[in-house]
Amino acid sequence: MDPACLLTHPMTRQDPARALAARYEQVRQQTRILAEPLSPEDCQIQSMPDCSPVKWHLAHTTWFFETFILSRFQPDRPAFHPQYRMLFNSYYNTIGARHPRPQRGLLSRPPLDDIWRYRNVIDEAMRRLFIRMAGTDPVFDQLVELGLNHEQQHQELILTDIKHALSLNPLQPPYMPHRDAAAGTSAPPGWVRYEGGRTRIGHQTSGFAFDNESPAHDVLLPPFYLADRLVTQGEYLEFIRDGGYRRPDLWLSLGWDRVCAEQWRAPLYWEGQKDDWQIYTLHGLRPLEPQAPVAHVSYFEADAYARWARVRLPREAEWEHAAQQMPSDHNLAANLLESGHLRPIAASAVPAGGNPAQLFGDAWEWTCSAYDAYPGYAPPAGAVGEYNGKFMCNQYVLRGGSCVTPASHIRPSYRNFFPPEARWQFSGIRLSRDV
Amino acid sequence: MDPACLLTHPMTRQDPARALAARYEQVRQQTRILAEPLSPEDCQIQSMPDCSPVKWHLAHTTWFFETFILSRFQPDRPAFHPQYRMLFNSYYNTIGARHPRPQRGLLSRPPLDDIWRYRNVIDEAMRRLFIRMAGTDPVFDQLVELGLNHEQQHQELILTDIKHALSLNPLQPPYMPHRDAAAGTSAPPGWVRYEGGRTRIGHQTSGFAFDNESPAHDVLLPPFYLADRLVTQGEYLEFIRDGGYRRPDLWLSLGWDRVCAEQWRAPLYWEGQKDDWQIYTLHGLRPLEPQAPVAHVSYFEADAYARWARVRLPREAEWEHAAQQMPSDHNLAANLLESGHLRPIAASAVPAGGNPAQLFGDAWEWTCSAYDAYPGYAPPAGAVGEYNGKFMCNQYVLRGGSCVTPASHIRPSYRNFFPPEARWQFSGIRLSRDV
Amino acid sequence: MDPACLLTHPMTRQDPARALAARYEQVRQQTRILAEPLSPEDCQIQSMPDCSPVKWHLAHTTWFFETFILSRFQPDRPAFHPQYRMLFNSYYNTIGARHPRPQRGLLSRPPLDDIWRYRNVIDEAMRRLFIRMAGTDPVFDQLVELGLNHEQQHQELILTDIKHALSLNPLQPPYMPHRDAAAGTSAPPGWVRYEGGRTRIGHQTSGFAFDNESPAHDVLLPPFYLADRLVTQGEYLEFIRDGGYRRPDLWLSLGWDRVCAEQWRAPLYWEGQKDDWQIYTLHGLRPLEPQAPVAHVSYFEADAYARWARVRLPREAEWEHAAQQMPSDHNLAANLLESGHLRPIAASAVPAGGNPAQLFGDAWEWTCSAYDAYPGYAPPAGAVGEYNGKFMCNQYVLRGGSCVTPASHIRPSYRNFFPPEARWQFSGIRLSRDV
Amino acid sequence: MDPACLLTHPMTRQDPARALAARYEQVRQQTRILAEPLSPEDCQIQSMPDCSPVKWHLAHTTWFFETFILSRFQPDRPAFHPQYRMLFNSYYNTIGARHPRPQRGLLSRPPLDDIWRYRNVIDEAMRRLFIRMAGTDPVFDQLVELGLNHEQQHQELILTDIKHALSLNPLQPPYMPHRDAAAGTSAPPGWVRYEGGRTRIGHQTSGFAFDNESPAHDVLLPPFYLADRLVTQGEYLEFIRDGGYRRPDLWLSLGWDRVCAEQWRAPLYWEGQKDDWQIYTLHGLRPLEPQAPVAHVSYFEADAYARWARVRLPREAEWEHAAQQMPSDHNLAANLLESGHLRPIAASAVPAGGNPAQLFGDAWEWTCSAYDAYPGYAPPAGAVGEYNGKFMCNQYVLRGGSCVTPASHIRPSYRNFFPPEARWQFSGIRLSRDV
Repeated sequence: MDPACLLTHPMTRQDPARALAARYEQVRQQTRILAEPLSPEDCQIQSMPDCSPVKWHLAHTTWFFETFILSRFQPDRPAFHPQYRMLFNSYYNTIGARHPRPQRGLLSRPPLDDIWRYRNVIDEAMRRLFIRMAGTDPVFDQLVELGLNHEQQHQELILTDIKHALSLNPLQPPYMPHRDAAAGTSAPPGWVRYEGGRTRIGHQTSGFAFDNESPAHDVLLPPFYLADRLVTQGEYLEFIRDGGYRRPDLWLSLGWDRVCAEQWRAPLYWEGQKDDWQIYTLHGLRPLEPQAPVAHVSYFEADAYARWARVRLPREAEWEHAAQQMPSDHNLAANLLESGHLRPIAASAVPAGGNPAQLFGDAWEWTCSAYDAYPGYAPPAGAVGEYNGKFMCNQYVLRGGSCVTPASHIRPSYRNFFPPEARWQFSGIRLSRDV
Repeated sequence: MDPACLLTHPMTRQDPARALAARYEQVRQQTRILAEPLSPEDCQIQSMPDCSPVKWHLAHTTWFFETFILSRFQPDRPAFHPQYRMLFNSYYNTIGARHPRPQRGLLSRPPLDDIWRYRNVIDEAMRRLFIRMAGTDPVFDQLVELGLNHEQQHQELILTDIKHALSLNPLQPPYMPHRDAAAGTSAPPGWVRYEGGRTRIGHQTSGFAFDNESPAHDVLLPPFYLADRLVTQGEYLEFIRDGGYRRPDLWLSLGWDRVCAEQWRAPLYWEGQKDDWQIYTLHGLRPLEPQAPVAHVSYFEADAYARWARVRLPREAEWEHAAQQMPSDHNLAANLLESGHLRPIAASAVPAGGNPAQLFGDAWEWTCSAYDAYPGYAPPAGAVGEYNGKFMCNQYVLRGGSCVTPASHIRPSYRNFFPPEARWQFSGIRLSRDV
Repeated sequence: MDPACLLTHPMTRQDPARALAARYEQVRQQTRILAEPLSPEDCQIQSMPDCSPVKWHLAHTTWFFETFILSRFQPDRPAFHPQYRMLFNSYYNTIGARHPRPQRGLLSRPPLDDIWRYRNVIDEAMRRLFIRMAGTDPVFDQLVELGLNHEQQHQELILTDIKHALSLNPLQPPYMPHRDAAAGTSAPPGWVRYEGGRTRIGHQTSGFAFDNESPAHDVLLPPFYLADRLVTQGEYLEFIRDGGYRRPDLWLSLGWDRVCAEQWRAPLYWEGQKDDWQIYTLHGLRPLEPQAPVAHVSYFEADAYARWARVRLPREAEWEHAAQQMPSDHNLAANLLESGHLRPIAASAVPAGGNPAQLFGDAWEWTCSAYDAYPGYAPPAGAVGEYNGKFMCNQYVLRGGSCVTPASHIRPSYRNFFPPEARWQFSGIRLSRDV
Repeated sequence: MDPACLLTHPMTRQDPARALAARYEQVRQQTRILAEPLSPEDCQIQSMPDCSPVKWHLAHTTWFFETFILSRFQPDRPAFHPQYRMLFNSYYNTIGARHPRPQRGLLSRPPLDDIWRYRNVIDEAMRRLFIRMAGTDPVFDQLVELGLNHEQQHQELILTDIKHALSLNPLQPPYMPHRDAAAGTSAPPGWVRYEGGRTRIGHQTSGFAFDNESPAHDVLLPPFYLADRLVTQGEYLEFIRDGGYRRPDLWLSLGWDRVCAEQWRAPLYWEGQKDDWQIYTLHGLRPLEPQAPVAHVSYFEADAYARWARVRLPREAEWEHAAQQMPSDHNLAANLLESGHLRPIAASAVPAGGNPAQLFGDAWEWTCSAYDAYPGYAPPAGAVGEYNGKFMCNQYVLRGGSCVTPASHIRPSYRNFFPPEARWQFSGIRLSRDV
């Protein structure tokens, strides 16, 4: 079965309860498809504390449904395994003890087979619960929706984490075979002008959104320009050739410390030097593609590149303001990145009518906005309240979505966030400048 | 000579050139006064990489005038010492090599006497330059003003750094003898309401301001409340007694990591336990004063305290908006903190007419705003451009000014900033809440 | 098939060439048997840099035969895989690049199946080589013997390393089911007296020995006593109860640093406190057995225990001198330790005729001798010369052999060695004292 | 006063009690002389945890007399300062709490003047005690002798530690002015043959010795050769030029790790490259002297050099055996090293009659012997028992004495010891080889 056909799942317009149950099946199956190319040993490994083993992702997303939904609506149901509650808790202090994150890669037991069985058992219990709960309790619907969005986030992490792990293997094994990508562009970027003013950002629809996207609120924006596409590998190579990694004046102070300490001289996964670069991808080692977007850069690198180009990174409100004005058929990825193959192309890469293309789906776009609470924000009560708020410190917001982000998971108000030194996500650069 | 009499220096209304020269003398002499209670050995020590030896502060502030002013307006003048350019460069990559920050405490040579001689020689050269340049070049005036404000920042650091160093000495020596402080308050805090709306923040006067206070720009503020005084030691003690340092749900995730790793259980400089706390101050070890403001808390602690109190920290724009509405006679410190003695009391501690007191001069107040660039911000060209911009990452803004901040250095638009784990500054807590 | 039946393999008295080939089969099969209870995921994990994944042990021991024997005597033979030379090189700089040791646990590829195939292919090639080389070249015989002893060392490491890895799993899975052990003793230890004098130690037979056991040489020994059995868990518990882990006067300075830094309060794998201890074993979690030998103690702990008991640890020459005087039927393990079940009991645990029992096969015995070169020692030329000499620094010699040491691998002159903080080996304590 | 005239102090042949008192005066005054060229700030600094500030050495050596002698023989005497007992305790757990070693450089209080006063007061008390105790109690005499030898050890550390601290100052200040050194030799080293056999080593005279030099005992030595001089800077330069720091086959495994981690490419204090080396000395930066002994090498470097030269380092018993056969007029240093100027030349540098010269007084000589207890060794009871025994782990013995070792402190049985990575002592290389 081709993994591509499942990442997008146009929501069937049936009755809401059946639609939710159907969506549950789709999302859960998609996770399974993503794990198919991997051996039990692949699913076991953890290459750094920020990453988790695929097996752990498979279990943790299941744990979420068992812990937050089954335990609540079916309190008499015995736990699948008495210790899974602790083993597969990610960071919920409210839930109790948890297994230390850096040691997730040591859990050879339970074996992968047990985790698949765990998934099946929980799925079966959820199916019965869907029937019983259908349309009776909005909290149930909301928690299921949260669990599915949570699992979609982990689908993306499965791919970013296994990419990082496999990249450290000297055999440089591909996650999946290569197929040709659509061509990119070598034309210089165009600048789309926005007049700013008072504008409303945040979650404003009836669809699902995480708590950190609310409350919607007004902001004042000065006029600004936004580039109509992402910075390409070829453009980034110019930055390298111009001594970008050797000039402290281009960097934030913490960024320069990092460049020196880790001896960065190119984005993560770039190997080689000068005019002979290769890039490790989910399809194995591939030659640099000058017209494809650059990815796997940290905030520090995105910021330094922008300073070198004498412009800047966009604020998150600017980005969202622009995204709100995109026609809906631009709302999908331009498939220029390595992993675009993971799903079909749904939108043209050519900017039309002065709008930026590629706002979604090639690479996450670093903004210069620190990740914080919107005015009036309050986390939900209980354990799910630990979802977002407690991470609002020393992280930057990324917008858009990458080639490994499930398409249905992407929306203009979505706020992704990572520390400024993170590079293992598919994170790229869109430029902005003042008028 | 009493140190107190120099920290405030009402600008004499003479002609501007003479006024600047007079201000130079005042600021430079104040630095000397601050170092007077200290031995050569006290001036030598460096207790952590974030701190610098007093001797280094004395030399570096002088280096600033020599490097950025004398070298520019008197290019033929030989350097005082060929290696001081490197030894006392703080972080200006543009200026060239620098001595590694963590090793500043190892520079037993040059001895303190040489540094005093260095100061005298540079002061003499500056005096001659004042006469020659009087009123001829606005750039000269601006650079002098920058140098003086820079030195005032280091006056504050001299006190915070020597406090930290002396506190680690088991003999717990005082920096200066104790005198009785004005009494504080045990009344619950009042809440002052602000209606918000579109308001202008940033540098809007003709006085000096750092680059990071510009450009002035409009922001939208929802209505909010601001507490009319700082959180007291007695109130903070309640937080401790209620298990504040043992409840992860009260903390940011990075904050909780820090609590565990460094075993925090009270603010920096608090010693003891339960109901028997003593606090190391510039006057030596002193009993806790329940009605005085709490200080030396990190952003993490300020944030956790606010969450415990079911309110929040103010945004920096809210704070500045409130400060703009203060009558001018409230513009000085309420002298409740240990070091209030360093300068005379210039304002009542009693909130009058629904305005918050103590906005300036007791303790720096953590805001929940990450330190970033105002829209349209551009750092100055050249080496002085390294002053602020490159530190705009993973830091939080503090507003107000503390008991060791020179009074003339305080203004509503001033933006101080430190990483969220920093505790060795006189940093306290003012609460805010949504309407 | 029972693993136990293969760990001892009385060398059949056939012609030497056939005997060597038969021994090759035995040793290689024994390794396979040890891996049988483990899943591919178990074989993948690496719990600390000192340990290696079982998969890596399986590959590395095979690499040894391919690299040092097949490549030499069959130079035209293509490598099994071009990158295995680098992937499975442990520490031989002469051989070229190697994969970083702490990252061995990340090699999910090649999968375990490939490694089994690798072993089969190399075994087949070795079989053909045995026929061709039979009795023609003593260097060939020596290298095979070295390779087999090398593999036996790794058989032991397979068990110590998987024990460490599984112990960190909160599920505490057993490596194999439990069977009852022979009872130990609660009698106080007896002291066997040796008169010392001029005695010869080191490799003095025609059998195999590692280079570090040569040259045999004379040493002078003062008279001494050696305990007739190992320190038991019950005796060690007395040390703990008497504050052994809280009294710095009992410890070497570096040992006390380690106790404080890692908060040791019992041997590795002991869980619980006071009078309720359990011990993680290869059979899972088991109650403490007061009469069984204590194991998994560091040199620091062995040394502190001896100081507490007002005696000392033996020198390695004393130990070897005593071992030379043991009747041969005492040459095998007393099977008191958890894993004694891995092989049949071959010797009585009862000391007979004033000789110490248990000199071999329960736990490695720390000596107080730093690991160094015997007078006149010279490492072999070439890559195999990197086997021992370069590790002669900051390690201590252990003698005897443990319950997971292959019986045929044990001999009086054998010198095992580990850093003084190592605890994951089956290392125990035999006491000694001056006359 | 010339520092040189006091480092040697031929013991006057007066009555023993007066002789001991006189020796006390000599040793204490010599310490004062060593500190004379240093400012209070120089005496304050601590460049790494292994080093201590000079001020601390001055206080700690005084603390030793107050704690172990005055407190014992004059129990009613009040302590000089109640907290000095803790502040200047080095590592005696028996004595109670101590100030953390890495923070010694932060003790700006007590100031240097107080420490001088401390020394004077204790000296005065000791003088009175000498009169009262004269010849009455051998324990008193032994403790005084221990205290004086202890202070002599710290005299050496004062120089090695201040050298390290000043070397990190970019101004590279000299400790004292330079004077010309005696010329060395460029002749190849000669080899002196020893027949070995049964020989007695350890403390065998009536003079003072540390506990670790006892008991004297017999050892068996095979015949061996010892070089008749130390390895020179010129010879060591050949090792560097031949890629000595780039060839892992020359190094112990831990040594190679250290070379890579710290990027060693020459001895400590060597600056420059290829054919242009300068060396930081107590007289400031000086050109390399090809014929002078190399110093400031670690055990790892000494061992690697010996391997490169296809010989080895001597065992400590070999060294002592050779030293016992030296005519007494060879018992002093050859003054070839930088700091030889610190005392007059007392012996010829020319080997006479087949004996090695320079066995004492140029540089400490690394032996290949791990530092351990002699057979039958037992540390003294009480706190002084913490002097040596607890450090017998992961250190190597050095023999001889260096140009900064007090001459009266040197004897054939003296055992100095440092970890194999230590380089800040004046440690050099004498070669040995098997017959």
